[in-house]
Amino acid sequence: MEGITTIRGGVCSAKGFRAAAVSAGIKYEGRDDIALVAADSPCSAAAVFTTNKVAAAPVVYDRAVAARGKAQAILANSGCANACTGEEGMRDAALSALVVAGELGISPDDVFVASTGVIGRRLPMERLLSGASAAARALGRTSAHAHRAARAIMTTDTKPKEAAATCVIDGRRVTVGGMAKGSGMIEPNMATMLGFLTTDADISPAMLRRALLRAIAKSFNSLVVDGDESTNDSVFLLASGKAGNRRITRSCDGFRAFSAALERVCVSLARQMAADAEGATKFVTVTVKGARSEQDAARAARAVARSPLAKTSWFGGDPNWGRVLAAVGYSGADVADCRAEVFYDGVWAYRRGEVAGETQLGKLAAVMRKKEFSVTVDLHLGKGESTVYTCDLSLDYIHINADYTT
Amino acid sequence: MEGITTIRGGVCSAKGFRAAAVSAGIKYEGRDDIALVAADSPCSAAAVFTTNKVAAAPVVYDRAVAARGKAQAILANSGCANACTGEEGMRDAALSALVVAGELGISPDDVFVASTGVIGRRLPMERLLSGASAAARALGRTSAHAHRAARAIMTTDTKPKEAAATCVIDGRRVTVGGMAKGSGMIEPNMATMLGFLTTDADISPAMLRRALLRAIAKSFNSLVVDGDESTNDSVFLLASGKAGNRRITRSCDGFRAFSAALERVCVSLARQMAADAEGATKFVTVTVKGARSEQDAARAARAVARSPLAKTSWFGGDPNWGRVLAAVGYSGADVADCRAEVFYDGVWAYRRGEVAGETQLGKLAAVMRKKEFSVTVDLHLGKGESTVYTCDLSLDYIHINADYTT
Repeated sequence: MEGITTIRGGVCSAKGFRAAAVSAGIKYEGRDDIALVAADSPCSAAAVFTTNKVAAAPVVYDRAVAARGKAQAILANSGCANACTGEEGMRDAALSALVVAGELGISPDDVFVASTGVIGRRLPMERLLSGASAAARALGRTSAHAHRAARAIMTTDTKPKEAAATCVIDGRRVTVGGMAKGSGMIEPNMATMLGFLTTDADISPAMLRRALLRAIAKSFNSLVVDGDESTNDSVFLLASGKAGNRRITRSCDGFRAFSAALERVCVSLARQMAADAEGATKFVTVTVKGARSEQDAARAARAVARSPLAKTSWFGGDPNWGRVLAAVGYSGADVADCRAEVFYDGVWAYRRGEVAGETQLGKLAAVMRKKEFSVTVDLHLGKGESTVYTCDLSLDYIHINADYTT
Repeated sequence: MEGITTIRGGVCSAKGFRAAAVSAGIKYEGRDDIALVAADSPCSAAAVFTTNKVAAAPVVYDRAVAARGKAQAILANSGCANACTGEEGMRDAALSALVVAGELGISPDDVFVASTGVIGRRLPMERLLSGASAAARALGRTSAHAHRAARAIMTTDTKPKEAAATCVIDGRRVTVGGMAKGSGMIEPNMATMLGFLTTDADISPAMLRRALLRAIAKSFNSLVVDGDESTNDSVFLLASGKAGNRRITRSCDGFRAFSAALERVCVSLARQMAADAEGATKFVTVTVKGARSEQDAARAARAVARSPLAKTSWFGGDPNWGRVLAAVGYSGADVADCRAEVFYDGVWAYRRGEVAGETQLGKLAAVMRKKEFSVTVDLHLGKGESTVYTCDLSLDYIHINADYTT
């Protein structure tokens, strides 16, 4: 969209936000494992959570906060998921929020909590609470603060993930920034995806939620690593209103500009997650177009992105279009193999019954040696189109997820 | 069921059937790659095929044969799937059936054809047809003939798969036998599952089909390796009527006995397939019980069996109940983690909020060192129950499926 600018930045890029990270010794030694993001004043808030029916305590807790549409801080820890911990886990989540609220002098109703790590173990509350207090005292507005927070939420991620973008609304510069962690499975237990987004846009909670749902559909929900959905997946968005635009309360030009900037940030974070998924050696964008419907396109693209056979062929550098087409075939989407086409980075492998020969296979081999490529299936049946971000399935995925003892 | 006896045997165990295998050089060198099963006279016939919308030519051809409920022979080849081959592939399938019919002096309408192997390549018709003719001349009734046929249909299978069982109907001994191949993906392209079943029961085509659908639901359709469904999956069942029982034309004691014997054979073949899936080091039976409904139980069991996270934990010998419960959570099935229990071979790992401690983990570690174990989830919400046969996800799976060049 016109007027959207990608900038370097993270959760402190938008006006009115501070961040901190501290080492509390939850599980890891010698690294930060608690992050805190706090706004100077109460914000419009929206959040989206895992649909997994086995939801972790912080998710259950946060749903109530999100329902009020208002929040001011988010506490996150790595190393322990606080999932399958029953009533005690719920009390631990509430107590954590209470301590953060006390330190910041805000309402405990305005604090989100997020956890990631081992399932079925209680949070080490003494360490967590002293860590939360220390984080509250260490808050700062610099990009270094934001960057350290992005590192603190990492688990098997090999790189911190941050993104930011700006747009102009009512002549005022509006900024959206964020950080995220791990789309691959989290050592040792789960595939937790956490996203923390901040903006200085002035926007109502209802419109903020609408923008977040749209952006997530095109980004985090278009991300497929292994099809495993965690008990803790959460994305939070706080809007401080400090940009000075006229408050967005309905669908208008300002809303569209804001939504586009938010989507830009979310897509960037999602792509960073796919590229850094556990054991991933290749980042693959799967697009299905020409489908009978949007739903068909989405089904087919997800089936390809989830197929262990397709994923291992990408790892092996094999332009195995047969596996791709077979996954489309069992996805439930309508397909006529006599009309379909399969491309790798625009180079055809199969088109309407014609199969790649020697010369074409040479071109395809070159594409598949790249660290990043696209797989496109054109079904030639309609106008439905869907894109999914994913990665290959490698030997390291197995190593990372098998070489662990509970 | 009472009166069902498992016996050693295969496609020649039932009266009235012969089999043969020959080496035609379709793709592999120095091994049989064509199998032929032929009945002495026309049989009641039933067959079930892949639901993949990208169906191979032989599947399209066979659907018409199966619709007539009558058949007398099945020709199978490994090495080439005859999938995504358009009109020419359809002609190749029809011509193969014609040649077999000519050699056997039967109607071409009574011949099934089955292929497995590379997608997008035409069958080498000259070699295939001379192989089919040679097979017709080599037919025999011994268990050695059956065994050689079971070997000819193998691809990445490491062992041939055969099973047989008997029951008594109207005082006559009725036999069911069969062979199957590869539930793991077929090198190089596809996860093809082929099953060939024969029986000497006298039974109408309609009842034969009903029995086959039931048996498949409890066996081949309860088999999960990687969730990839092939373009070529087919299960064939021929009934010669030579046992001399009163013809089964409705649901009666005889039908129930026959169905139980058929299920016994199909379950045995399905278990052999899971145990021999590509790269599998462990055979795992996943049972979900206490579900709100049968459908919920089936959904949950399949989600666990498909979860790459759960499968790698089995490979790693890790009683990681959190991954199992999380898979149930995202399956769509109803679950309350405060009520659920997870067992490995009857040893509990999680029960109603209680988590396995040191002693219990020691017992669980012993279970997981076994080559074969069960994972049971009791949801305590109802009476729905479902069992799925599956295997772990190993480093060899990746090797087998990545180290291939189209």
